[in-house]
Amino acid sequence: MNVATLSQGLDTIWLVLTAAMILLMEGGFALLEAGFVRQKNAVSIIMKVFADITFGALVYFAIGFALMHGKDLGGWIGTTGFFMRGNLEHISLNVSMDTFWLFQSAFVIAVISIVSGAVAERINFSAYLLYAIAMTGIIYPIAGHWIWGGGWLASLGMIDFAGSAVIHGLGGFAALAAAIFIGPRIGKFTPDGQANIVPPSNLPLASVGAFILWFGWFGFNSGSTLSATNSSIGHIAVTTMLSAAAGGAVSILFTMLRYKKADPPMVINGALAGLVGITAGCAFVTDAAAILIGVICGIVMILVSELLEGLQIDDPVGAFAVHGVSGSIGTLALGLFATKDLTAATGQGYYGLFYGGGWQLLGIQFVGLLAIAIWGFVLTWLALKLINRFVRVRVSRDEELVGLDVGIHGVPAYSQAHDFLDINELKQNDR
Amino acid sequence: MNVATLSQGLDTIWLVLTAAMILLMEGGFALLEAGFVRQKNAVSIIMKVFADITFGALVYFAIGFALMHGKDLGGWIGTTGFFMRGNLEHISLNVSMDTFWLFQSAFVIAVISIVSGAVAERINFSAYLLYAIAMTGIIYPIAGHWIWGGGWLASLGMIDFAGSAVIHGLGGFAALAAAIFIGPRIGKFTPDGQANIVPPSNLPLASVGAFILWFGWFGFNSGSTLSATNSSIGHIAVTTMLSAAAGGAVSILFTMLRYKKADPPMVINGALAGLVGITAGCAFVTDAAAILIGVICGIVMILVSELLEGLQIDDPVGAFAVHGVSGSIGTLALGLFATKDLTAATGQGYYGLFYGGGWQLLGIQFVGLLAIAIWGFVLTWLALKLINRFVRVRVSRDEELVGLDVGIHGVPAYSQAHDFLDINELKQNDR
Amino acid sequence: MNVATLSQGLDTIWLVLTAAMILLMEGGFALLEAGFVRQKNAVSIIMKVFADITFGALVYFAIGFALMHGKDLGGWIGTTGFFMRGNLEHISLNVSMDTFWLFQSAFVIAVISIVSGAVAERINFSAYLLYAIAMTGIIYPIAGHWIWGGGWLASLGMIDFAGSAVIHGLGGFAALAAAIFIGPRIGKFTPDGQANIVPPSNLPLASVGAFILWFGWFGFNSGSTLSATNSSIGHIAVTTMLSAAAGGAVSILFTMLRYKKADPPMVINGALAGLVGITAGCAFVTDAAAILIGVICGIVMILVSELLEGLQIDDPVGAFAVHGVSGSIGTLALGLFATKDLTAATGQGYYGLFYGGGWQLLGIQFVGLLAIAIWGFVLTWLALKLINRFVRVRVSRDEELVGLDVGIHGVPAYSQAHDFLDINELKQNDR
Repeated sequence: MNVATLSQGLDTIWLVLTAAMILLMEGGFALLEAGFVRQKNAVSIIMKVFADITFGALVYFAIGFALMHGKDLGGWIGTTGFFMRGNLEHISLNVSMDTFWLFQSAFVIAVISIVSGAVAERINFSAYLLYAIAMTGIIYPIAGHWIWGGGWLASLGMIDFAGSAVIHGLGGFAALAAAIFIGPRIGKFTPDGQANIVPPSNLPLASVGAFILWFGWFGFNSGSTLSATNSSIGHIAVTTMLSAAAGGAVSILFTMLRYKKADPPMVINGALAGLVGITAGCAFVTDAAAILIGVICGIVMILVSELLEGLQIDDPVGAFAVHGVSGSIGTLALGLFATKDLTAATGQGYYGLFYGGGWQLLGIQFVGLLAIAIWGFVLTWLALKLINRFVRVRVSRDEELVGLDVGIHGVPAYSQAHDFLDINELKQNDR
Repeated sequence: MNVATLSQGLDTIWLVLTAAMILLMEGGFALLEAGFVRQKNAVSIIMKVFADITFGALVYFAIGFALMHGKDLGGWIGTTGFFMRGNLEHISLNVSMDTFWLFQSAFVIAVISIVSGAVAERINFSAYLLYAIAMTGIIYPIAGHWIWGGGWLASLGMIDFAGSAVIHGLGGFAALAAAIFIGPRIGKFTPDGQANIVPPSNLPLASVGAFILWFGWFGFNSGSTLSATNSSIGHIAVTTMLSAAAGGAVSILFTMLRYKKADPPMVINGALAGLVGITAGCAFVTDAAAILIGVICGIVMILVSELLEGLQIDDPVGAFAVHGVSGSIGTLALGLFATKDLTAATGQGYYGLFYGGGWQLLGIQFVGLLAIAIWGFVLTWLALKLINRFVRVRVSRDEELVGLDVGIHGVPAYSQAHDFLDINELKQNDR
Repeated sequence: MNVATLSQGLDTIWLVLTAAMILLMEGGFALLEAGFVRQKNAVSIIMKVFADITFGALVYFAIGFALMHGKDLGGWIGTTGFFMRGNLEHISLNVSMDTFWLFQSAFVIAVISIVSGAVAERINFSAYLLYAIAMTGIIYPIAGHWIWGGGWLASLGMIDFAGSAVIHGLGGFAALAAAIFIGPRIGKFTPDGQANIVPPSNLPLASVGAFILWFGWFGFNSGSTLSATNSSIGHIAVTTMLSAAAGGAVSILFTMLRYKKADPPMVINGALAGLVGITAGCAFVTDAAAILIGVICGIVMILVSELLEGLQIDDPVGAFAVHGVSGSIGTLALGLFATKDLTAATGQGYYGLFYGGGWQLLGIQFVGLLAIAIWGFVLTWLALKLINRFVRVRVSRDEELVGLDVGIHGVPAYSQAHDFLDINELKQNDR
């Protein structure tokens, strides 16, 4: 046993464990979304998450990883490493290449899961499968290349430690495009444009989904060091915790002031907004800045949720307000609050406006965010437009009214059936 | 890469991962409590857990950590480190100070979550928020200082490895005080003093809550070494496992004997009782003693649950029986069973009565437990008394009857609504 | 601090963390099974999982570990180490012996949990307790000794990295025996032999069970290296991920083709089938082979599920189709796809038919699988036969019709009760 072997082992288990934590977030997404939608669509949304993790992993293995992390072509796209073969020598790691792939695959699966919430209760499953392939194979990997694969945004100096922009911003703006493209659920808005309401089907499930996501986020952010001996790991975990706590706490207080009650769905989303917001800067900001970022994200998430309803945009689980908006805030916040880079042994830093760095970093962050938001929005729109030529993106009116669980997947989420149903009778009824 | 860097990295990821596991226990508490209470209060109890993890983290960051781990003043209280600033040089660590904070914050959040169960179904949310601030900012940190912050109990020689006394004993006696202070739920007892019953709303959720807590406990106990190279980690995990298994197994057998059926809520709580009981001594007792501690905790938990009902004290989820009683047993058991200290490289030991140490350790443990139990009980009583002057601690009769979910938070935990509710009609009805 | 201490610490936390992840799989099993069965039996199946983890751990501590890993007697059985005492010097480890025990105990608990699903909704709890003791104390440990304890199958050259054969094959064939022994649920089959159907009671719970199992599987497979510096850990995690994704993805496509809908229960089980199938070979096959194994396991699982229904064998959660069949496929697949052994520093390999190793390894795998399958099936049959002499294995007709939750455990899984039930009235009604 020597130090190099130990170091490789340590980094490997760090990435494997944090990747497993991030992948468990799919269980969190599934519960969160199933709890927020109506009972008649609870299984259908979970099937989308299964599509994310299964097709997402395979497509990212075959195509996505190469486009994102392959040998750079002009700052725009990666070109090697399809099926994890070919030249990937430009990537220097202390772990095996496929360990790195596993960690990256957990990220792409998170991106597509963000979108799944925005189209809940009305997207056709076959069309969703095709979109998931487009997102995990092309849309995300290319944007990911720009900043994490050595592309033009990286060259420009944009920073996004664990993906407020490239994961949550991209996913959130894609979710917005998808929500607009597919249109609101039947009955969501009154003829005069007011938002009707429906209570979430299962708030305990949604809550535990949030706790699982919170758990996974420690893997998401701290694991993004890619190295277990990076001196910033502890600080990353702490800023992550503080921002989440601030986002949740402010949502409690703000909804108590605004609605005269601590509003459970907003509190759940408030904690998540704090987590999303700190994702870009967890390694680069102070504890106090982390709290402030969480506070801002929590409040703005609530206001944007209201705004979207006013605009008659129907995003059933708040995917855009949580991921798109908080991701944007977090990305821009770096331009203000970034200070010493704790991940760098050399002590270099990215200094934001409030730490003597002037407007430069803020400008770069803005350009990068804009590019990623437009890319996510436009490509999603085009992808859905294209898919709609071959497979209808939205379920039929009848399927939507009966619910996607029975309508598309042939089985309800919950059943209180006490006894077996006679198969012969069922067959007769079907005729 | 050198050995010191590796060692710091290893210790850091150990604390970050185990802290994340302990924080996931909040999801376990949420499910356990939501499953045990009536459906009409399932969200309200989860909102308390959200208050615990959000306000708890922030308050402990601002105040609690300093009172607990700051520079000691007379053995009673810490005085430095508010907002994690100021002189904390007396703390010698192989990890960064904020990593240590994160791990400690996960503990304080667990303490307050213990109390949340005892006041379920009837506490006013605003009052609970204030109590949570008092507990995480003052009550727990001061008691914690006595033993883990270099205070008078530590000087006396009390041992409490991962907190049977300071976490579970304190939390449990605080829960008892709160349950007595707030009084039983409407309808819990008949006029002649018998306990009425109501089946738990969701036992599958409660069960998975227990499994998540069990998982987190490996982080709770093993992580308390604060070092990944501590030679006792394996043994700690094993005694934790054995005591939990023994607590659960004996609850199965004991309820089969006593009630003619393996009683699910008691089995769930039996395993948890075993986990609580071993928390003080996990590093200091043998495998056999761990099993015995689990057995005792499982049985006594059941008997105390019955006893409390006889005394007309209403503790809806068994917080006192599980945490207060098993925590006490575990703390005292060290006075009997403590043997070689596996955490100490030097091989020193704390020897209990059965291992040649005489009565001394048992006496110290008893004094420490008494101090912590009284502190937790009295301070909680005083805090609630004080809060009650400004905000009523108990919800109104109407709110309690309709349930806290709709009554306080405006939304039911579960909804089978198929279609949207017309907002104009709702508004008209509200008038 | 030196390299040896660091290495021991690293290996210890690796095993403790992965053991905790595997033990969390019990929560996954509980949810999966509670979600798949009818609501009236949801708690009873979870109580079986509690029996698994509590009695399983204690019995394996007392007896099982010794029979499995004790000093070998003739290749058939271990003979030392009861209660973790006595001579275990033949086991050479970089971690403490009890850390090794903890990891192994997590495996035996998984085995018995596989069986619990197949006898769901109709087994008597007392009889199940006795069977669980037989399985964890004798049946599994002896088979485990053959291959992992230095027994005759190991000598023969059989390979089974993390237990496709010894965990899932054994558990699956035991499940088949138990399902046949106990007979189908009342109403499952029509008089003319067709399978009646009943929708699962809670598919969101079943789904999150699958996500938790998936998370735990990273511990299951990667942790089986028993060393954190083993160079195959990353590859193991990746093949595990790819096979699970392939199993899930092919189940989506296959059920869309076959049933015109992506069938949620089959998709859940398809991902699990992929996980089971890769368990034997995760360290020995390529990425491409892992995907292929997942695809085959997913499809065959569906076909075998249909076949069992045709044969009027009632396995409510698909335990045999998922664990028995995919475990067998995975075990045999090694005879085809095994290539370089990534776990061996020396670069030695086990070469399967497609990698120039000829038919030899396939033959050995077949013999080993056959031995383990027969052992699991026959011993389970005999155990149930024996138990049935003392305690009826199947619940009464009345208990089955009313459901095991109320019938055996006296409490329903879910209750919407709004108010307390008057104890005096209840007592009067009981008379």
